[in-house]
Amino acid sequence: MKELAIALVSGGMDSCVSAAIAKQNYELAFLHVNYGQRTEIRELQAFNDIADYYDVKKRLVVSIEYLKSIGGSSLTDDNIPVSIADLNSKNIPTSYVPFRNTHLLAIAVSWAEVIGAVKIFIGAVEEDSSGYPDCRKEYYHAFNKLIEVGTKPETHIEVVTPLIDMKKHEIVKKGIELNAPLHLTWSCYKNNDVACGVCDSCALRLRGFKNAGVKDPIKYAITI
Amino acid sequence: MKELAIALVSGGMDSCVSAAIAKQNYELAFLHVNYGQRTEIRELQAFNDIADYYDVKKRLVVSIEYLKSIGGSSLTDDNIPVSIADLNSKNIPTSYVPFRNTHLLAIAVSWAEVIGAVKIFIGAVEEDSSGYPDCRKEYYHAFNKLIEVGTKPETHIEVVTPLIDMKKHEIVKKGIELNAPLHLTWSCYKNNDVACGVCDSCALRLRGFKNAGVKDPIKYAITI
Repeated sequence: MKELAIALVSGGMDSCVSAAIAKQNYELAFLHVNYGQRTEIRELQAFNDIADYYDVKKRLVVSIEYLKSIGGSSLTDDNIPVSIADLNSKNIPTSYVPFRNTHLLAIAVSWAEVIGAVKIFIGAVEEDSSGYPDCRKEYYHAFNKLIEVGTKPETHIEVVTPLIDMKKHEIVKKGIELNAPLHLTWSCYKNNDVACGVCDSCALRLRGFKNAGVKDPIKYAITI
Repeated sequence: MKELAIALVSGGMDSCVSAAIAKQNYELAFLHVNYGQRTEIRELQAFNDIADYYDVKKRLVVSIEYLKSIGGSSLTDDNIPVSIADLNSKNIPTSYVPFRNTHLLAIAVSWAEVIGAVKIFIGAVEEDSSGYPDCRKEYYHAFNKLIEVGTKPETHIEVVTPLIDMKKHEIVKKGIELNAPLHLTWSCYKNNDVACGVCDSCALRLRGFKNAGVKDPIKYAITI
């Protein structure tokens, strides 16, 4: 029998491909975290569509909408506009939610300790990312150290980041290779119906498909 | 003007004394996290009483009741009984909430980054504790490393554990020395009206007062 792994599935393309990689060697449990972002309704639908595709029975959906009351990000604070993508900028974009991945991983570890999962797959991408501090390899090294010292002695849980060194076009190719349901994913930070095509996330995704030489199966309002 | 520090205040004695120590050098912001524990109503009252005592304006109360849906602890899962204290046991008690402090600290760090706080005070106790893995010094070292790599380059936030090496009776004495409002605190894991006197938390507290040679100002149903 395969060991159990938790896949963090936002509903976006990266987490879908990350889950597809996990699927090769583990039984899957899917975790989705709603942190009060603008596009949560659409992302939750994508989460369930992807879970259905892989026939995942163990699903946990957790709300950490309290991040809204903390603020500081355009994703959760309606007073901060979602910035138009500038993929050459070295600045951390307004969509940055301070320390967000720590909240997500803490939930995953607590759940893993209870259900006996040994791995946590997260679709974080360092190289081709938006420059969020908590998407870097050294962050995940530090987090794995934290798990080691912060859980029961008999517990061995590891966060795995299979995409961390990939470029977006490599993620697209990997997804197609593994027959991941990219057509069911949702990446847009701004809209719930038709992807905007101009936010950071849309722009990165579109560039990835373009560089992979593949047509993105979802529809866009505008493509820049 | 004093720099800002966040004090994690559960409403219990340890976090109250930790906040009293923070108060000596910092302007205070108080954070309380409701994780669906049995005694939350009483703890929240204690939190607000202590905040009023110190005239703290910046207060954040966050619910992470999703821990209930994860389960695994007698504090949040009604199907697991709260164990009677065995202070000589080396086992992790049933009240252990897997990886709980990581959830609390993640919230504190996100808030600190937004409001510009430089320290986070938490009343964790290693030596005289119940043996929770996330109350040990090495856990906090690992967490501070995580903050360093997981936040913006210009952000410098540090978790401070002023009680980590203290015995319970030393915490009692420290609290009295600093005029901390111990009479407003609540430690019982089981009851919301009169402290039970027999759960892990009551037993540790009572032993602390006894060893300090001071009478606990709160009332108990039974004392063993």
